[in-house]
Amino acid sequence: MKLWQKDKASLKEVEKFTVGKDQEMDLYLARFDVLGSLAHITMLESIGLLKSDELSVLSSELKRIYKRIEEGNFIVEEGIEDIHSQVELELTKKLGDIGKKIHSGRSRNDQVLVDIKLYLRYEIEEIVAEVKNLFDLLVQQSEKYKDYLLPGYTHFQLAMPSSFGLWFGAYAESLIDDLVTLHGAYQVVNKNPLGSAAGYGSSFPINRKLTTELLGFSTLNYNVVYAQMGRGKTERIVASSLSNIAGTLSKLSMDACLFLNQNFGFISFPEELTTGSSIMPHKKNPDVFELIRGRCNQLMALPNDIALVISNLPSGYHREMQLLKELLFPAIQHLKHCLRMSQLMLSNISIKDNILHDEKYKFLFSVEEVNKLVVAGMPFRDAYKKVGMDIERGFFKSDTHLNHTHQGSIGNLCLPEISALMNATIDGFRFNDYKEAIKRLLV
Amino acid sequence: MKLWQKDKASLKEVEKFTVGKDQEMDLYLARFDVLGSLAHITMLESIGLLKSDELSVLSSELKRIYKRIEEGNFIVEEGIEDIHSQVELELTKKLGDIGKKIHSGRSRNDQVLVDIKLYLRYEIEEIVAEVKNLFDLLVQQSEKYKDYLLPGYTHFQLAMPSSFGLWFGAYAESLIDDLVTLHGAYQVVNKNPLGSAAGYGSSFPINRKLTTELLGFSTLNYNVVYAQMGRGKTERIVASSLSNIAGTLSKLSMDACLFLNQNFGFISFPEELTTGSSIMPHKKNPDVFELIRGRCNQLMALPNDIALVISNLPSGYHREMQLLKELLFPAIQHLKHCLRMSQLMLSNISIKDNILHDEKYKFLFSVEEVNKLVVAGMPFRDAYKKVGMDIERGFFKSDTHLNHTHQGSIGNLCLPEISALMNATIDGFRFNDYKEAIKRLLV
Amino acid sequence: MKLWQKDKASLKEVEKFTVGKDQEMDLYLARFDVLGSLAHITMLESIGLLKSDELSVLSSELKRIYKRIEEGNFIVEEGIEDIHSQVELELTKKLGDIGKKIHSGRSRNDQVLVDIKLYLRYEIEEIVAEVKNLFDLLVQQSEKYKDYLLPGYTHFQLAMPSSFGLWFGAYAESLIDDLVTLHGAYQVVNKNPLGSAAGYGSSFPINRKLTTELLGFSTLNYNVVYAQMGRGKTERIVASSLSNIAGTLSKLSMDACLFLNQNFGFISFPEELTTGSSIMPHKKNPDVFELIRGRCNQLMALPNDIALVISNLPSGYHREMQLLKELLFPAIQHLKHCLRMSQLMLSNISIKDNILHDEKYKFLFSVEEVNKLVVAGMPFRDAYKKVGMDIERGFFKSDTHLNHTHQGSIGNLCLPEISALMNATIDGFRFNDYKEAIKRLLV
Amino acid sequence: MKLWQKDKASLKEVEKFTVGKDQEMDLYLARFDVLGSLAHITMLESIGLLKSDELSVLSSELKRIYKRIEEGNFIVEEGIEDIHSQVELELTKKLGDIGKKIHSGRSRNDQVLVDIKLYLRYEIEEIVAEVKNLFDLLVQQSEKYKDYLLPGYTHFQLAMPSSFGLWFGAYAESLIDDLVTLHGAYQVVNKNPLGSAAGYGSSFPINRKLTTELLGFSTLNYNVVYAQMGRGKTERIVASSLSNIAGTLSKLSMDACLFLNQNFGFISFPEELTTGSSIMPHKKNPDVFELIRGRCNQLMALPNDIALVISNLPSGYHREMQLLKELLFPAIQHLKHCLRMSQLMLSNISIKDNILHDEKYKFLFSVEEVNKLVVAGMPFRDAYKKVGMDIERGFFKSDTHLNHTHQGSIGNLCLPEISALMNATIDGFRFNDYKEAIKRLLV
Repeated sequence: MKLWQKDKASLKEVEKFTVGKDQEMDLYLARFDVLGSLAHITMLESIGLLKSDELSVLSSELKRIYKRIEEGNFIVEEGIEDIHSQVELELTKKLGDIGKKIHSGRSRNDQVLVDIKLYLRYEIEEIVAEVKNLFDLLVQQSEKYKDYLLPGYTHFQLAMPSSFGLWFGAYAESLIDDLVTLHGAYQVVNKNPLGSAAGYGSSFPINRKLTTELLGFSTLNYNVVYAQMGRGKTERIVASSLSNIAGTLSKLSMDACLFLNQNFGFISFPEELTTGSSIMPHKKNPDVFELIRGRCNQLMALPNDIALVISNLPSGYHREMQLLKELLFPAIQHLKHCLRMSQLMLSNISIKDNILHDEKYKFLFSVEEVNKLVVAGMPFRDAYKKVGMDIERGFFKSDTHLNHTHQGSIGNLCLPEISALMNATIDGFRFNDYKEAIKRLLV
Repeated sequence: MKLWQKDKASLKEVEKFTVGKDQEMDLYLARFDVLGSLAHITMLESIGLLKSDELSVLSSELKRIYKRIEEGNFIVEEGIEDIHSQVELELTKKLGDIGKKIHSGRSRNDQVLVDIKLYLRYEIEEIVAEVKNLFDLLVQQSEKYKDYLLPGYTHFQLAMPSSFGLWFGAYAESLIDDLVTLHGAYQVVNKNPLGSAAGYGSSFPINRKLTTELLGFSTLNYNVVYAQMGRGKTERIVASSLSNIAGTLSKLSMDACLFLNQNFGFISFPEELTTGSSIMPHKKNPDVFELIRGRCNQLMALPNDIALVISNLPSGYHREMQLLKELLFPAIQHLKHCLRMSQLMLSNISIKDNILHDEKYKFLFSVEEVNKLVVAGMPFRDAYKKVGMDIERGFFKSDTHLNHTHQGSIGNLCLPEISALMNATIDGFRFNDYKEAIKRLLV
Repeated sequence: MKLWQKDKASLKEVEKFTVGKDQEMDLYLARFDVLGSLAHITMLESIGLLKSDELSVLSSELKRIYKRIEEGNFIVEEGIEDIHSQVELELTKKLGDIGKKIHSGRSRNDQVLVDIKLYLRYEIEEIVAEVKNLFDLLVQQSEKYKDYLLPGYTHFQLAMPSSFGLWFGAYAESLIDDLVTLHGAYQVVNKNPLGSAAGYGSSFPINRKLTTELLGFSTLNYNVVYAQMGRGKTERIVASSLSNIAGTLSKLSMDACLFLNQNFGFISFPEELTTGSSIMPHKKNPDVFELIRGRCNQLMALPNDIALVISNLPSGYHREMQLLKELLFPAIQHLKHCLRMSQLMLSNISIKDNILHDEKYKFLFSVEEVNKLVVAGMPFRDAYKKVGMDIERGFFKSDTHLNHTHQGSIGNLCLPEISALMNATIDGFRFNDYKEAIKRLLV
Repeated sequence: MKLWQKDKASLKEVEKFTVGKDQEMDLYLARFDVLGSLAHITMLESIGLLKSDELSVLSSELKRIYKRIEEGNFIVEEGIEDIHSQVELELTKKLGDIGKKIHSGRSRNDQVLVDIKLYLRYEIEEIVAEVKNLFDLLVQQSEKYKDYLLPGYTHFQLAMPSSFGLWFGAYAESLIDDLVTLHGAYQVVNKNPLGSAAGYGSSFPINRKLTTELLGFSTLNYNVVYAQMGRGKTERIVASSLSNIAGTLSKLSMDACLFLNQNFGFISFPEELTTGSSIMPHKKNPDVFELIRGRCNQLMALPNDIALVISNLPSGYHREMQLLKELLFPAIQHLKHCLRMSQLMLSNISIKDNILHDEKYKFLFSVEEVNKLVVAGMPFRDAYKKVGMDIERGFFKSDTHLNHTHQGSIGNLCLPEISALMNATIDGFRFNDYKEAIKRLLV
């Protein structure tokens, strides 16, 4: 059944092709579709397009559906095109003609728009929580392993001493910048498109400020043409900021795979977290990190995937925007999964002791020697040349004692400052603002 | 000449291949390299690694170089590898050994990092200014043409009435969200990486808070490994937010090319702003919009271009990061150029009058009829069905009078609210904070 | 159950994360996995690693499984990691220890490699067949509508007369070049990786030429390290050539959406092939073409999606290569679906008559006037200037009679030549070579 | 000066923006533009649109220009829009009105199309030659180092013994598949678009078969709409196949950077081919390989860059297609440069002896032990379990003697077979066919 059905039926093939995976994808939106409808009918009543008792029965019924969704007892039935149709169908079955009234003053276009924004807002909060968990673990491990040195590489070549304090701390700090960009995306998401109808508004005297408040949005997508233009754009902006988190996890995984390699051998994991080989009995493979890396690299491709679908489309709705759900929604689940698996792995990591005591790492300390000469008064370029010549001629002897004291260095990790930055970043989201509103709406 | 040159010379071919376009790209960084050095030596003096009189002569000389750069009288000479070498060479020529001292306590890695961040901070401010100019023009045109109706399309099909007030206003509002994401990028950029040396810090007792203040950064990239990890990541984040602006311009250009097409004929431009054909004498082609569209679509590919270079690289510096300059720096110039050309075109646009008086557009008003029936009490789905049947049977008659009053609709564009949002967004950048610092540094 | 399981079990979470969607994706490979095993054991027997009667019972059992797969009665059971494990499990259940012997002399790595290649070879043949169907339809329609003129646009501006003969014919010819690149991909696919084991070969005296023949491959991936290196690379090459077909369909769909737009109104479709609107009763939306466009644009992103997963990985197998199945396999199904839907739409298209009789198209004929002057002896640049001046001054009068006779022009579509090119291209695949081999293997 | 100039001048800004980098990019096309014109006028004379003596003077003059281009004495002058205008200008200066006649019967559109195809055909031949040089070197090194073992990794974990014979040979064989796809691109390129005018043909009785022969194309782009549709598509197809070569070089570079890392230490290079550090005197950095990797990863992004510019554009010429020159032409030069630098590096590589004699690599031989048990009659799965248990309990002892004999394995590299495949692939291009034609045209 399709809501817009007139006399003639579409061909079965056309229906199958156009519905596609919508029934599955729309389950992500179910809860939020009900929330949008609750706000919409509350507003309709306020402007006289719904009677008070109609609002009352519709609200109760919608809240009952919401509860069923939360309990996992809601599906888009075979033959029903999408979530919006399913909800309206259930209302109409129960309440008759009143059920049809929830659609007054809006279009499926702005209904999907608001559903997606409510959904993304919710998922962003979930992701921020997972990122925070991983961040806390990284800070903890940074503190715990602050005295465990490892080689620092540039150009993949042995360069200078680094430490696991630095290594864990770097990824912690990376997540802050990732959330800064996610906050930008959140601000784009947290604006109300409801009331834009099919992208050109309507003659209904609707009150868009009211639905904005009821749904806890920070403000409106004012211009109705822009509200529609946000479709695709919003998804791409969210995907871009998710791809930053993904970039952090991917790089961490690459490092971990490298450090686990026997030529490095800096870290190890309990056997239960690695996998074996069908042919090589000695293997303990870092499949989890490889798959995090792969999934996260897919996520890095996601903004481009979206761009290719929407670029060069003129303004106004186009049907393929529906396909963006398939691109973005499962990717969000993958990212959360990767965040959790990263925590599982890193909380079980073992770090090798005294890595740098190996003779092959002695040149790591050459810069220290250069710097000593500089502090003793030799111009840097000359000191550099002298140590370089010593190394080439085999005269170089290192002193493995390190005294790095400046901010952010091995001896001064600034973890409290980094944690303070993270907290300030997360506070900036002000998730409570919207959560209070949703609570009120569901009372 | 290369700063790191020891006894043996690299092969000519290797030198040519590795230097690449650096001399050209580094000109973008010249001014900012001098600023970084000024802050660095001020700090070196404060911790006793430079004498007060050494600081004095080095500062004067660097400011002189800065002025030459501003006047366009500075180049990276043939045979000099990069901007850092060129500046140091000039200092050493003039001041002898003292010139070499500016490199104490830092590496080329953190020097480039800070240069790029100072450069990007500057360019972001430039771009914000150009975006604001375009925004103001769009708001002005939206107000001016608020009563000029045009067809609104969904699925490329005639849907409902829209207006040039809505059309201009939509692109204005789009730029706000673009700047919201640019503000996220700005916050990532506006952190000080100086002092991270080659990505592992150093034993120099440097004061990174001081250089942070001197250069007007909002805070530090604390962790030195993360500071280096910001290379590539920062570029990609900036590119992502620039690609949002580009996405707005590209869509606007697509609309413009469509509207200029003779089958639509909604807009026109003075002949001087269009181009002719080598074979078809009647053509007036919208080349400017086509090229904006193309350039901006290239920009939409930029984050992916960067991702492909850096993905799966382990932490630490890798030489190909140098290539990102070629990807990002010219793209920034292209974007600014596109922003200016958009202004030129849109300030010279002519809008056709009474577009919707044409009979072929009459069905645009069918939704109005549905809504009237709804307001009169008929459930939406029934009203929809009735009008649909009327159309199919040829009974439909439209009334072209529109009465859209809700926020963001044809009759209520909310331009003041949109302008207020834009102003608040731009205020959030707080560019003055850094500009005051730079002014002090150059006194 | 995992084939490589030793004493300790992996954590449930790790298992869930690493298996991922493999059970679903491996169903695509099921048939081909059995074929690979059939060839492998035949070879094992030929070198004495399997007894003749062992080969006999294993073959019968494998053919029985093959049949079940063809009939749709085969699944990868809950708890079984992948298709290879499932097949081996069934053999062992039925035949005991003999079942385990099918894995001698190979690894899961080369087993997956050969499965994927056999699968892709099969799918390429399927796609070629669908492309051929669409091609034939396009040629037919080109012939049928050869005298139906429409405006040709350049820069989206009215330019010169075109025809639906040209339009259909252009997309037909486009598919030839698409298949030329697919043939390149086919040649890359049609090489045998079996015997490369985990990417480093083995000490088994296996006969790789024999499995090459048995499976109907044109030759081997000789070098075992390269055989493994083909993972990811092969998928990307196939995706690239599929993206060419996708590009053709996407452009065709864009044209169709434009031509269906009421401002053009060149084409129409029966109502059953279009869809309505939930709010605008007069709409007849080209959703099928929009979704083809969207799906095909996703396909154009696919080579990049794969590139981002595999770029910068050193040689040797990495676990995330498994994820490429999820990227490529469903995409292949989408492309075939789009090819079939394109046929459905284009075989039901109606073309408007006498489009160019409308006065607004008269300037389309200006080039004709220029050319007449040229043929009469005036230099082209002068003729061009004259007609241009006439148009500007309002003197231009066109003669709508066209006499285009050169190859590939409106009056000389060269459809037989184009069809001959297509046939030669398809003949080049020589699909029969491999099909004969597979038939023999299954006897 | 613009060829299409009528009365009014375009604004300076518009001119600057639209011309862009065309003058620089068109130099790549100069030679081929002249060739296209030579064929065109020969054809014009054959159909009576040019007199025999006109053809004679025009030909002489064009050949003179061709020679100047070859000698590097040709530029697009300031103020001249593009290469086509420059050539025509020079002809007109010298020959007066006759010069203008070369444009009869064609448009700038098909002129650019044929220029690009001739240019790409030429560059593909150049690239094939460079690939062949690298291939030959790799085969040579494979033979030379066939007994130098190194660890083979899967999942980045020690897996089984490999050899430098395999390693070099794998990259050699990889280049074959790359050329197979390039051959596909070549066939797409090697078709004549000349005569398609602005994409809709013309009323001139031109003979497109004749220009096809004169320019040595294998056949025509028959349909004129398709000929124009090839713009962008051709570039993307060529870019895709170049990206395969780039992918091979990128992976080789990643391996080289890893093997050069001191934790592996498998290979080294003369100091002149590596670079130093501004701060760490002991560094010998593989900058060349890092930059090859970076450049080649950029190339892997190129097909997507092109896709984003052209996707969703309806058929017909659009001005931004001009921008594709900037994307593709310099990338081709970069790829050739990378191919040459790879040769320089690999011809100077040193391979460490006896790598696997190190105790840490002993488990590499565990599969050998499993296989021995299998050959002795134990089912594979049981043998695998036994060796695995031995390793876990510390009982494992390896025998480092290898006896790999099957095709493509350590002991049987199949270099002659691989070389034969490469030769057959290159022969398939049949470059001589076109070169003979061009020679005749220039006589």
